[in-house]
Amino acid sequence: MDMLQYRALAERLFADIRTLSFDGVGVTRESYGRGETVAGAYLRDFALSEGLAVEADRAANLVFSEPGAPAGSPAVWVGSHIDSVPQGGNFDGLAGVIAGLLLMVARRRSGHGAAAALKTIAFRGEESAWFGKAYMGSGSLFGKISAADLELKQRSTGETLAECMRKAGADVDAIRAQEPLLDPSAVKAYLELHIEQGPVMVARHLPLAVVSGIRGNVRHNRIDCIGDAQHSGVVPRWLRHDAVFAVSDLIMRLDAHWSRLLERGTDLVVTAGIVQTDAAEHSISRIPGRVSFSLEARSKSNDSLEAFYQLMRAEAAAISRERGVMFRFDRRLASDPATMDPFIVGLLSQACIDQATAYEVLPSGAGHDASLFANAGIPSGMLFIRNRNGSHNPHEEMDIDDFILGVQALSHTADRIESKAASS
Amino acid sequence: MDMLQYRALAERLFADIRTLSFDGVGVTRESYGRGETVAGAYLRDFALSEGLAVEADRAANLVFSEPGAPAGSPAVWVGSHIDSVPQGGNFDGLAGVIAGLLLMVARRRSGHGAAAALKTIAFRGEESAWFGKAYMGSGSLFGKISAADLELKQRSTGETLAECMRKAGADVDAIRAQEPLLDPSAVKAYLELHIEQGPVMVARHLPLAVVSGIRGNVRHNRIDCIGDAQHSGVVPRWLRHDAVFAVSDLIMRLDAHWSRLLERGTDLVVTAGIVQTDAAEHSISRIPGRVSFSLEARSKSNDSLEAFYQLMRAEAAAISRERGVMFRFDRRLASDPATMDPFIVGLLSQACIDQATAYEVLPSGAGHDASLFANAGIPSGMLFIRNRNGSHNPHEEMDIDDFILGVQALSHTADRIESKAASS
Repeated sequence: MDMLQYRALAERLFADIRTLSFDGVGVTRESYGRGETVAGAYLRDFALSEGLAVEADRAANLVFSEPGAPAGSPAVWVGSHIDSVPQGGNFDGLAGVIAGLLLMVARRRSGHGAAAALKTIAFRGEESAWFGKAYMGSGSLFGKISAADLELKQRSTGETLAECMRKAGADVDAIRAQEPLLDPSAVKAYLELHIEQGPVMVARHLPLAVVSGIRGNVRHNRIDCIGDAQHSGVVPRWLRHDAVFAVSDLIMRLDAHWSRLLERGTDLVVTAGIVQTDAAEHSISRIPGRVSFSLEARSKSNDSLEAFYQLMRAEAAAISRERGVMFRFDRRLASDPATMDPFIVGLLSQACIDQATAYEVLPSGAGHDASLFANAGIPSGMLFIRNRNGSHNPHEEMDIDDFILGVQALSHTADRIESKAASS
Repeated sequence: MDMLQYRALAERLFADIRTLSFDGVGVTRESYGRGETVAGAYLRDFALSEGLAVEADRAANLVFSEPGAPAGSPAVWVGSHIDSVPQGGNFDGLAGVIAGLLLMVARRRSGHGAAAALKTIAFRGEESAWFGKAYMGSGSLFGKISAADLELKQRSTGETLAECMRKAGADVDAIRAQEPLLDPSAVKAYLELHIEQGPVMVARHLPLAVVSGIRGNVRHNRIDCIGDAQHSGVVPRWLRHDAVFAVSDLIMRLDAHWSRLLERGTDLVVTAGIVQTDAAEHSISRIPGRVSFSLEARSKSNDSLEAFYQLMRAEAAAISRERGVMFRFDRRLASDPATMDPFIVGLLSQACIDQATAYEVLPSGAGHDASLFANAGIPSGMLFIRNRNGSHNPHEEMDIDDFILGVQALSHTADRIESKAASS
């Protein structure tokens, strides 16, 4: 199918939902809250007007299907999320849902495909900005939302996640019991189209990219480096235990390791997002006695994460000896990388080649609902669309032509998965 | 005079002021603020009860004199400061003021000396911890506080130095006009007793030390490093503009220069006492887009300070290019190194010898109000008292017996300066 004829429709859908969720600066579509519900209601009306069926699942996500399709029959699912961060951009999440709907509308209008082999899911609650927890809608389907998660409070209203989910119509008791709410055998494959949230595709002039995997991470929310606070004028260099110099030393050693690992082809990013001397005692004329900082490494490979983590601990130990400081680590947090299905990666790549769109296979640094499906054993694939100015801000800038190229590639891929499933 | 009989009185004065300014951890005597004013009021009451005269000068410093002494008559001045850093120690500054008062009380009680040849000054605002500027009280006397300095903001309250000075009773208009508020010819000599703020005297078993000179410094209270805040997972190393990595890089380059300069015999210490990512926007999963930090170098040599400063600016410029960040420097602050008067150094040394107290002649790494007097051409001298655990922290530990030895040496020295002045 030629998706180019749906360009104007796509523009209208993006514009209408932007208007509905505009906050004066960007868009605000609260997870399990107002803006998200408004966007969902608009999409439901649109889908019904196109003759599609719509139902809410037990986590209050919206599932769009072709009418007459037997409930629970295996299908290729296309999905993404409809919430946003506060004052966010219009395309993060929404693009993937509109892509799925356009595919279904195109099939229906053209009479393509009799089998009810395609569904679109619009997830609620993907962004961690509201409750400090990501993948609430998709996680609920796989029993990944705990009773503790349900007590998390919304950043503005203070309402719990459980309250907000219940208002949206979710089966909170089932979610709390961590019951699986989706049968994986009903999902032949999961496909997600999403804007890129980094600058690589713009820099490399790539309208599309096929995602190879979603990076996992290893983190410490807080590491304390403890030295000895003394008057800055009176302690010579060799007698100092300066926490700022020690942390700077650690960061520069990690930077050197990172650089070397990249040369060897390791996938890795390293961030110390928070660095703070102790405001209760720091001063311009005091050798800093304490620095707290966060540290995060992300990689597609658990082995790379573990190797880098051990390097970090070894360097911290060496600096402790050399500079007479102590590093104190809080609980190590980790999330596993997810690997996209190689067969689907191949189909998405072939689709780009067939339509002569420049693409590369790239890892996703940010997390996505697709990682939940992949780690549940469902063959999953993702397609990135070029986007300027990053995400999580009002300045996201996706070209609608790039988006249509992505929908086109997704269409070919969905067809191929279905024909393979039909022939196997 | 035998000062040993004033041991218990000294202990009481220190204990009372500690109680008045205790903050639960250490003492907090804000420059031109509450704790400092409370300490000053206590000392004023004590002095009046001993029959001394007290007045505030035009910078709101307290000047204690013998009653009936003609205003403006030449005297030997003993002084130090009564403010402290936040959660600081009780002896830094206060010891020198109590030393002067004890000398005056001892003279008055014993009927020693008819000429009003001794004054004690309790400076406000010596510590840079509150406004990012040191010697505000003594500097005002010599026209060293500029209109820009007066706009500096208090770290906790945000009030300007001008507002705080005005509340304390200072003549802010005269200070802003940089009028000299003290006639140097009224000061025969300036003597300051102060705890040592470094570890040398404890290591060498010296109760007292005579100060040969005072290190100067060059400073920026706040340098902002501005990068680009982006999602931590999605931007590869080569496209990052990470402010934390850039600042760490700068600090490690300065550490390497410092180390090489020390090998060549340069006197230098370097400190970045405050380092902060921006709490309004930092997060564990965000590349830090902004870091603010302080930077200070101290040396006995102005040439060394200037050379190091230029190295710093050159490295910052190089890092800006290499890492795609920007460094924004606030006003450069500097204070000149100062040399103590050789004749007074001799008198103080002779006093130590006469009373059989072990001493050495040492440089001061920390700055002191005495440097302002020395650089105004007033013969000045300083005596250090042994002190454990450094200063600017609650663990300062000065032995009261060491203190009395210092007061004794100061007493002899003041007498000798006066008799020399009388005979000259």
